[in-house]
Amino acid sequence: MVFKKITLIGRSTESFDAATDDAIDRAEETLDEVHWVEVEEFGVEVASVEGREYQAEVEVAFELQE
Amino acid sequence: MVFKKITLIGRSTESFDAATDDAIDRAEETLDEVHWVEVEEFGVEVASVEGREYQAEVEVAFELQE
Amino acid sequence: MVFKKITLIGRSTESFDAATDDAIDRAEETLDEVHWVEVEEFGVEVASVEGREYQAEVEVAFELQE
Amino acid sequence: MVFKKITLIGRSTESFDAATDDAIDRAEETLDEVHWVEVEEFGVEVASVEGREYQAEVEVAFELQE
Amino acid sequence: MVFKKITLIGRSTESFDAATDDAIDRAEETLDEVHWVEVEEFGVEVASVEGREYQAEVEVAFELQE
Amino acid sequence: MVFKKITLIGRSTESFDAATDDAIDRAEETLDEVHWVEVEEFGVEVASVEGREYQAEVEVAFELQE
Amino acid sequence: MVFKKITLIGRSTESFDAATDDAIDRAEETLDEVHWVEVEEFGVEVASVEGREYQAEVEVAFELQE
Amino acid sequence: MVFKKITLIGRSTESFDAATDDAIDRAEETLDEVHWVEVEEFGVEVASVEGREYQAEVEVAFELQE
Amino acid sequence: MVFKKITLIGRSTESFDAATDDAIDRAEETLDEVHWVEVEEFGVEVASVEGREYQAEVEVAFELQE
Amino acid sequence: MVFKKITLIGRSTESFDAATDDAIDRAEETLDEVHWVEVEEFGVEVASVEGREYQAEVEVAFELQE
Amino acid sequence: MVFKKITLIGRSTESFDAATDDAIDRAEETLDEVHWVEVEEFGVEVASVEGREYQAEVEVAFELQE
Amino acid sequence: MVFKKITLIGRSTESFDAATDDAIDRAEETLDEVHWVEVEEFGVEVASVEGREYQAEVEVAFELQE
Repeated sequence: MVFKKITLIGRSTESFDAATDDAIDRAEETLDEVHWVEVEEFGVEVASVEGREYQAEVEVAFELQE
Repeated sequence: MVFKKITLIGRSTESFDAATDDAIDRAEETLDEVHWVEVEEFGVEVASVEGREYQAEVEVAFELQE
Repeated sequence: MVFKKITLIGRSTESFDAATDDAIDRAEETLDEVHWVEVEEFGVEVASVEGREYQAEVEVAFELQE
Repeated sequence: MVFKKITLIGRSTESFDAATDDAIDRAEETLDEVHWVEVEEFGVEVASVEGREYQAEVEVAFELQE
Repeated sequence: MVFKKITLIGRSTESFDAATDDAIDRAEETLDEVHWVEVEEFGVEVASVEGREYQAEVEVAFELQE
Repeated sequence: MVFKKITLIGRSTESFDAATDDAIDRAEETLDEVHWVEVEEFGVEVASVEGREYQAEVEVAFELQE
Repeated sequence: MVFKKITLIGRSTESFDAATDDAIDRAEETLDEVHWVEVEEFGVEVASVEGREYQAEVEVAFELQE
Repeated sequence: MVFKKITLIGRSTESFDAATDDAIDRAEETLDEVHWVEVEEFGVEVASVEGREYQAEVEVAFELQE
Repeated sequence: MVFKKITLIGRSTESFDAATDDAIDRAEETLDEVHWVEVEEFGVEVASVEGREYQAEVEVAFELQE
Repeated sequence: MVFKKITLIGRSTESFDAATDDAIDRAEETLDEVHWVEVEEFGVEVASVEGREYQAEVEVAFELQE
Repeated sequence: MVFKKITLIGRSTESFDAATDDAIDRAEETLDEVHWVEVEEFGVEVASVEGREYQAEVEVAFELQE
Repeated sequence: MVFKKITLIGRSTESFDAATDDAIDRAEETLDEVHWVEVEEFGVEVASVEGREYQAEVEVAFELQE
């Protein structure tokens, strides 16, 4: 029952909280056993989007199935 | 009038801001002279809680009484 | 078309999101081509302000004019 | 013949060595060409387990098949 | 229910595992709710001891009582 | 439209640039939407190869398909 | 005989050496067995003081009594 | 004769060396006394450009005029 | 009332304290509202100077005027 | 009586403890005054060895002879 | 068969690759068993040289002879 | 004309400046071409000495002779 960690970058036009949730939501769509998440970095994209896009780079830890 | 720093982890079901405030609230209950706070790390606990628990690890700096 | 990065610290009595926006707003007042922003550190000032002041130290990347 | 690295967290009730081996064992079950492993972090889980659980977060480097 | 983290350095003439356990043992003597431990650094003292002394600097996280 | 990051190590007998390209080429063979790459580390393998092998450990960011 | 480390910030209007000594002096007033000190960061406060205040953030390691 | 450091990101379609030179060239257009440069990070932009754009984030140190 | 941080390297033939003061002195000649300074790195130049030159790389934080 | 530090990588087919001891043993063969050792990194070599080889990169501090 | 690591800074008027090779060439003149090299930092010296001097600080790992 | 860097720890009962000078003095006794020094860490030894011993861990860069 080993854990694996993957790195995702969630995005939101609202807030860093929402960007973090975006990444966790995506992880939970395909992974059954998400245990915890660590925020690696917050950023804001300005030039290539309308308004501002909050981004949250997170490491998602989940339990590997046997 | 030396400062001391301690490390607390605040928790909230709402947001990282609220988790940070949770830690500062706790510090101010027992410490008179909290001066500033530095965020060390944000995380989200998923597996052992209902829904999601936002966590903020912070260093709280306060002035030591003589 | 080289990018330059400068370091600003935005401040807000509300939240880390608002403190980050504060820094970006200030950057966009004087810089035409802000491309992206990286959060370096979040903190909270307690002793020298009324209530709490959320602070966001960010690096702002913009395109240098020819 | 590019290498890829993934992050696993092995667990053991005995020791950090055994936790590291646990992660490598799991990697070798599904990956043919494990080349080397770098230890990222050791930890011990206490509250949610019987006794103590030693954990080893490792990066496993393996050769990608053509 | 905020967590607090303190830094201890356990010592052992046997191994890094034992040095880590030494720090956790000490923490559990005086703290009721130890949750997890993070290893910060391993070292070996040679000059001021008989033989070798393995040392483990760890952060111990425990739940603060109300 | 979440991003994911994976870690690859490209290799070349010529240069660090070519080693970086090697990793990106491999990523683009199997991933449709590579957005950017961050260099994590450069190294040179000497003992187990003929001549010198330049290596580039990179993080490749790509957009996850819905 | 476990060591514990705490974080103090000493202050001086004279120098970084004096700021470091200030923190050690304070530690020795209440702790019997200070063993060593590691400097974490030097800074200078300008705005809220008369002249300049040199600050030394240090980790103080001392031996826990049985 | 104090030094000042600024952060620039040079860009090239050829190589990391050329991206670094691009940043130094730009610095020397407006600054008389560039002394040295430290590479902070290399990256490659893929999605928003034709082909690949090598990027070099560098700190440029120059002597401030009296 | 956003803060901005710039990086300066002060120099002295006497000490690290004096090198730090040198950088702050220079900052205060042109900036009205210097608030605090963080030491990034200390070094000593030997080869290109008579005797030894102590250097202090510091980040100077000041308040941006409206 | 200045200390010097060198970097060694000890190797063992048994454990990280033994790999660390391997490096210290080697240091003590040629150096009289080894004072302490800091572990920099643990790794495991898999591809080029029979079984697994535990490796410990350590910094060895010793007192320079006059 | 312990490894030892030393730190060299290679220099070239051409490129970072050549500066890295410069350091490895020098290492191989006096050391029989160079195994691998890790790049620690790239820089460019401008003020004290004709044109630009690319510098590569590298750690060279080699096998200690019995 | 490659540079080499070695790590020394100078010691003084007076100050961090003197501890740094102590390390440079020792380096210059045996090395002809010391170019520059980078401070890695400051510490204070308390338990095993009379009074306090200031320590400066520095990297000394010197030019290798042909």
